[in-house]
Amino acid sequence: MENFNFYSPTEFVFGKGRAAETGIYVRKYGGTKVLMHYGGGSAVRSGLIDTVRKSLAYAGIAYCELGGVQPNPRDTLVYKGIELCRNEGIDFILAVGGGSVIDSSKAIALGVPYAGDFWDMYSGKPVEKALPVGTVLTIAAAGSEGSGDSVITKEDGMLKRGTGSEHLRPKFSVMDPALTQTLPAYQTACGATDIMAHVFERYFTNTKEVEITDRLCEAVLLTMVRETPRVIADPDNYEARANIMWAGTVAHTNLCGVGREQDWNSHGLEHELSGLYDVAHGAGLAVIMPAWMEFVHNHNVMRFCQMATRVFGCQMNYEDPEATALEGIRCFRSFLKSIGMPINFAELGAKEEDIPTLVEKFGVGDGRTGGFVKLSAADVTEIYKIAAHAAL
Amino acid sequence: MENFNFYSPTEFVFGKGRAAETGIYVRKYGGTKVLMHYGGGSAVRSGLIDTVRKSLAYAGIAYCELGGVQPNPRDTLVYKGIELCRNEGIDFILAVGGGSVIDSSKAIALGVPYAGDFWDMYSGKPVEKALPVGTVLTIAAAGSEGSGDSVITKEDGMLKRGTGSEHLRPKFSVMDPALTQTLPAYQTACGATDIMAHVFERYFTNTKEVEITDRLCEAVLLTMVRETPRVIADPDNYEARANIMWAGTVAHTNLCGVGREQDWNSHGLEHELSGLYDVAHGAGLAVIMPAWMEFVHNHNVMRFCQMATRVFGCQMNYEDPEATALEGIRCFRSFLKSIGMPINFAELGAKEEDIPTLVEKFGVGDGRTGGFVKLSAADVTEIYKIAAHAAL
Repeated sequence: MENFNFYSPTEFVFGKGRAAETGIYVRKYGGTKVLMHYGGGSAVRSGLIDTVRKSLAYAGIAYCELGGVQPNPRDTLVYKGIELCRNEGIDFILAVGGGSVIDSSKAIALGVPYAGDFWDMYSGKPVEKALPVGTVLTIAAAGSEGSGDSVITKEDGMLKRGTGSEHLRPKFSVMDPALTQTLPAYQTACGATDIMAHVFERYFTNTKEVEITDRLCEAVLLTMVRETPRVIADPDNYEARANIMWAGTVAHTNLCGVGREQDWNSHGLEHELSGLYDVAHGAGLAVIMPAWMEFVHNHNVMRFCQMATRVFGCQMNYEDPEATALEGIRCFRSFLKSIGMPINFAELGAKEEDIPTLVEKFGVGDGRTGGFVKLSAADVTEIYKIAAHAAL
Repeated sequence: MENFNFYSPTEFVFGKGRAAETGIYVRKYGGTKVLMHYGGGSAVRSGLIDTVRKSLAYAGIAYCELGGVQPNPRDTLVYKGIELCRNEGIDFILAVGGGSVIDSSKAIALGVPYAGDFWDMYSGKPVEKALPVGTVLTIAAAGSEGSGDSVITKEDGMLKRGTGSEHLRPKFSVMDPALTQTLPAYQTACGATDIMAHVFERYFTNTKEVEITDRLCEAVLLTMVRETPRVIADPDNYEARANIMWAGTVAHTNLCGVGREQDWNSHGLEHELSGLYDVAHGAGLAVIMPAWMEFVHNHNVMRFCQMATRVFGCQMNYEDPEATALEGIRCFRSFLKSIGMPINFAELGAKEEDIPTLVEKFGVGDGRTGGFVKLSAADVTEIYKIAAHAAL
């Protein structure tokens, strides 16, 4: 096991009806004048925005609002938010929505106290300061409610880039699984895929002897394999929604990743897809991640056998371990298909002829990008090709 | 799943050689004049106390010291510590040791700003304030390094009582698995038993549909079942020590318990044993917990089957589920025996004729104590009797 720090100081406020307590938590964590940031559409229609407004007013907290966050949130709205916060003397950012809204809120939070262009922090500059952020989560997916990460898309060129810092971890996150019951099945499945991907990026490691982290990863994955088909079949299943929502947070506080080298190449490969085609991140991951697994499985066949047997319940083939490894990957892709995810370029709406563009944007150049398996530009091309033609 | 809040704001500083960073973290969390609290013996002999002293001095932090914490830490030393802190103007308590030292430190921390007798908080009064606490952990066991709990023994009558509060959660905990390599096998095994007990107290619940928490519980238990025999066989196995140490923390931050009713009767039953005989808490749990399981297994046979199959790898007997449940309990007791734990009163040094005293001190009176199964005084007597005579 490698040395590590684990620090997850977010207060999670979990359960039915808890959005009405939002104002109490904003106050507890020092907010006096709040920017309420959201997407629009469903959060407004469902009455959630109104519930939060009332809760803020009840707690005596002043606020202004900025809606309109899109999936794959854009830098353009972040600039608008930063300006608004400065003009209004905002001291707390409240995200009401899913990963995109939370990521956009974090970008505004780090941009307000920074004299230069906030994009600097998405180009490698460390975050030194940020306004406090709280969230009211509406989708189980990104894990952004418990992480210090944020991903923003630069509209000019559709460049998708991320940053991470302890300063960006939400002070609190209100998580009501009932709020996710109105999500379309496709979005629910995209979220589930993202959650599983967050675990797999950490599960495939070259670090030996991290049994506790392996088992925690498998705990989340087993939960997702059981609960996801239940919510796809019955969107109103509160219990299954609750299990998925909490699994999504556990998947991304880094509890599943401490003490070990992590991969994250699949996320990088996917960012180019959703950047270029503006598709859902989870859908892109469903296409990329099994393709990545197929490409790298020979790097450590036994680790893929562990996934196959422990997560997907495959029988170990002791005469032909590779067959078990491939069976596990097949099970994963088949699971994704069964919950309605695309599994190849055509189903996603991506084009094989764009692969050179994707590879170039991914930017491995002549170097190799690290993690479980270092990838060259040729390797990346090959993974996109596998993803293009994948079938069950 | 029940509504819950989860808040674990401790910064865990994990890995080889990290005790030398202690001063940095005391400073980070606002300590300027520290009480360094420890047991004595091994922490001094190993040079750890010296390492921490140097680290504090290097960070420019003033400190005074109070050693002498015993296992089952006493109120008498807590009173001494409170007085010392007041006289010296201490603003931060640094625990260097295991659960007993940390619990004693928390008691001092809550006692210093409290005008009355600190024991009030161990008699049901809520904790409203406490000095910040940091820890340098030397034993994987109590989980006190990541919890808001503390248990103290009143010397007059050997009364063992606990308290819990968010104010008592350590600001940081330095965890170097190498520090546990010098522990005698017996103490290592006691610690492992305590860790598993912290999970089982949460695992046996009447709350339905908490798959994610179940799976996280099983992740910790599976890790303990694999790693404990490895450190008993080879005390210098750093990797196994590291897995156990982190599992011990995960077991008790309440990540394994959120969203569900919990039991905790076994801990209560054990506190009377270690209170009366001054035996190690883990050893008492090894005697009590399987006895409790035998007594309550019919309350929910399927839950015990889940333990048997998922944790101990038993084959499910579909014709006779109870046989599987009992086989799981037998596996647990056999595991405890194999790591050197006592499994009955004689091996622990307890006496069957004291059972009425134990039951009286446990204090269920005519009422019933809650959790997974509500217990009457007669039930408690029966559990102690099973524990007295247990055999493989």
